[in-house]
Amino acid sequence: MTGQSEDGSNGGEFRGHRDTAQVDVPVAPPRRTGPVGGLPASRSGPPAQASAPLPAQRALTGPVPLPADGRSDASPLVRTVERHLDEILAAVPQPDPIELAVLDAQGLLCAEDVVSQRALPAFDQAALDGYAVRAEDVAGATVARPVELPVVGESVAGASEPSSIGPGLAMRVAAGAMLPAGADVVVPAVWTDGGAARVAVQAAPPVGSYLRRTGDDVAPDDPAVHVGTPIGPAQISLLAAVGRDRVAVRPRPRVAVLSAGTELVEITSPLSPGQVVDVNSYALAAAARDAGADAYRWGILPGDQRRLAEVLESQLLRSDLVLVSGTFSGPAFEMVQEALAALGGMRVSQVAMHPGPAQGFGRLGRDEVPVIFVPGEPVAALVAFEVFVRPAIRLMLGKRQLFRRTVQAISGQHLLSPLGYRQYLHGTVMRHPDGGYVVEPVGEATDALLARMARANCLIVIDEDVTEVAAGGLVTVMPLLLGG
Amino acid sequence: MTGQSEDGSNGGEFRGHRDTAQVDVPVAPPRRTGPVGGLPASRSGPPAQASAPLPAQRALTGPVPLPADGRSDASPLVRTVERHLDEILAAVPQPDPIELAVLDAQGLLCAEDVVSQRALPAFDQAALDGYAVRAEDVAGATVARPVELPVVGESVAGASEPSSIGPGLAMRVAAGAMLPAGADVVVPAVWTDGGAARVAVQAAPPVGSYLRRTGDDVAPDDPAVHVGTPIGPAQISLLAAVGRDRVAVRPRPRVAVLSAGTELVEITSPLSPGQVVDVNSYALAAAARDAGADAYRWGILPGDQRRLAEVLESQLLRSDLVLVSGTFSGPAFEMVQEALAALGGMRVSQVAMHPGPAQGFGRLGRDEVPVIFVPGEPVAALVAFEVFVRPAIRLMLGKRQLFRRTVQAISGQHLLSPLGYRQYLHGTVMRHPDGGYVVEPVGEATDALLARMARANCLIVIDEDVTEVAAGGLVTVMPLLLGG
Repeated sequence: MTGQSEDGSNGGEFRGHRDTAQVDVPVAPPRRTGPVGGLPASRSGPPAQASAPLPAQRALTGPVPLPADGRSDASPLVRTVERHLDEILAAVPQPDPIELAVLDAQGLLCAEDVVSQRALPAFDQAALDGYAVRAEDVAGATVARPVELPVVGESVAGASEPSSIGPGLAMRVAAGAMLPAGADVVVPAVWTDGGAARVAVQAAPPVGSYLRRTGDDVAPDDPAVHVGTPIGPAQISLLAAVGRDRVAVRPRPRVAVLSAGTELVEITSPLSPGQVVDVNSYALAAAARDAGADAYRWGILPGDQRRLAEVLESQLLRSDLVLVSGTFSGPAFEMVQEALAALGGMRVSQVAMHPGPAQGFGRLGRDEVPVIFVPGEPVAALVAFEVFVRPAIRLMLGKRQLFRRTVQAISGQHLLSPLGYRQYLHGTVMRHPDGGYVVEPVGEATDALLARMARANCLIVIDEDVTEVAAGGLVTVMPLLLGG
Repeated sequence: MTGQSEDGSNGGEFRGHRDTAQVDVPVAPPRRTGPVGGLPASRSGPPAQASAPLPAQRALTGPVPLPADGRSDASPLVRTVERHLDEILAAVPQPDPIELAVLDAQGLLCAEDVVSQRALPAFDQAALDGYAVRAEDVAGATVARPVELPVVGESVAGASEPSSIGPGLAMRVAAGAMLPAGADVVVPAVWTDGGAARVAVQAAPPVGSYLRRTGDDVAPDDPAVHVGTPIGPAQISLLAAVGRDRVAVRPRPRVAVLSAGTELVEITSPLSPGQVVDVNSYALAAAARDAGADAYRWGILPGDQRRLAEVLESQLLRSDLVLVSGTFSGPAFEMVQEALAALGGMRVSQVAMHPGPAQGFGRLGRDEVPVIFVPGEPVAALVAFEVFVRPAIRLMLGKRQLFRRTVQAISGQHLLSPLGYRQYLHGTVMRHPDGGYVVEPVGEATDALLARMARANCLIVIDEDVTEVAAGGLVTVMPLLLGG
């Protein structure tokens, strides 16, 4: 039934078209002077100083401003979201097409121009139950002056020998049954008296009515399904009809999902102080699957250096993309970095985004499989997935529309955002009764936590050069619909 | 990441809210007089008569008008689309919730109110890399006048013994590491000199900054995920975090898909004259899966009466819904009807829709499993799926929004529609550069064929009481997006 995914109408090349906020704003230079004033709208320096802490002053939970003195060793070069994304998109492989049974091809993009071997329909047939006649024999028939014809037989659906009718005769036909040669119209049964030996025809449909001719739908060698078409029920219907039980498609990329961290334990383990549940291998596997990948949750990486290297190597061999989450510091991260270094190395970048900013990427192993390393904090992990991993998976799937559609919404609240950072806030977006959209961030702090994220239905995206959005002002919103 | 499916924002009960054309227009009475004029805009009588067929007169391919003389035996009582749909929706069962591993729950609706057994976070922790201190010890610190403190150790992520700091001391902390007792703020590393034995703090964040307290996110006994919430990556993240590796969900309904017809053969079989490929068991299984069902394609029903009955019985036992396609006439249909009659019977209705109009429904077997019988013509089969089966599957899934959203679009062409019938035409809908939508039917005839359907991205829905839509007029359009 469906000829369009969200790709169908107005996709663009990923270089040329981004619905998401796309201004590649340079990062503001670190301030050389101390900040002034209260909690600044632009938090690109440390918070306001006071001779004594103000009891009413709000605790800071958002992104950390650059250091106050602009030291270059503590403020490594920050890259834009776009630049990190471009590096990833340029590196993801285009998996070779594979041939799948048509039902398994559902939801994927066709990777061949399917040409029909057959005519559709394969034979002249009745479109509905009635009587096959020659139009000239019933010309002028009306309810008041019906035309009576002898009925010479019946054609039912199914394999049969070709039949024919001579002038002045009728043959009873079922929908889908072969049309007898000689007939050029089917009179619907409801426009007759339904007779068996003789039929009184009460109307005179024009030549060609209520029948389908061989090849009306598809002629042999006609193109049926084109390269790049998303395969849904309607395409499966057509593929089957032209005789294809298998079809070449862009395969689902195989994505391995791993978690790094000495603090991580399995969901059902009792927690000792300092331990946390590995939620990311579950959440990121779910997100990867939702994006269209064939996701494989490996789970928590081993703490043993040799075993860790083995796991990474084996996952590189079986994956088109490896996704690791973890904190970018501490002994677990160092162990992973060491193992990755032996396989080709991973670059850790400070990306001008919040949550973030640390993000890792490399191409590892013999096949230079892309490895994306995202923050271990679960909210930051899923934001990084949205921004970097989902577009990469969609590119591997061959989708033209890599990015979620965004809408402009009226902000219900005054929003602050750090200068030089693209901020992603979880929010709830609603249609406004008067048209358009209204959005509210979930929770009060800028630091969205797990329970808040689970209540959100969108990300609010605040550009790098925007430091505040007034209540009532417009803001970019990315609705997070399942099943993209 | 995702807290909303298309159900999330403004769903309604299925009785109260239908986006689709919903006017339950009475069917026009059959005309008692012969029609006049050329091809009538309102085709509720037989086509115009002429003493000789006009060569330019267009062959009729659309719905068949009611008989010209209004005979009641040939025009069984026609029911509205709404009435047939209501009968089906009232009869579909609500499968009992089942418990699934969280990753398998993806895309389904939560069927329990999940209450957290744990506090989240489970312990006070640093939100980023830095130094845990007492805020009063660094009050007034600036770049120009830093405060120096001795560093008494380091807290890294992972299981550890609780630690503490006394007044005037600092402890180095990693993001996610336990906060030492006594500390009430974390100073980000970039606002210090990064010292190991002593640290120079260059800013004075307010109490509580850059740390997370036990239970900030979720307290024990707090609700985490509510009944009816669609489970996406963000919900999986939260479920894992509160210690749940399994969760009760509304299961995917098991839908068996069968085809009836003596003319049907498998895709790869050579075709004898009169034979056609069984496309519907593939296309309807794909459509059922796309709608969220666990679809099982049985295929072509056997031609042997006893074996046929066995297949139907066994499919009723293993299914929540049985979907059969086939022509509503001929020996294959009679055999199916006989087998169904032994299991409880199926009512065949003339529904005031095109394509259609014949549609079947019954509740069969010991468990009164709903059986929906749709037309065998592939385009009519998938339209019937959209109109009757997809809402039934979504109701079984627990979705609040049973129907696809519709939009009003400007028709690019003059459209004709039979009075008294709701017409579904395949079309392509596009956004208009000036806003709104424009729609064109695919192909020229009113009878959309297989190849046309595969090029469509929407259904144009023309209400029962509308007989024509002028080019430039507004018409209801149902975009057919994959993955609903």
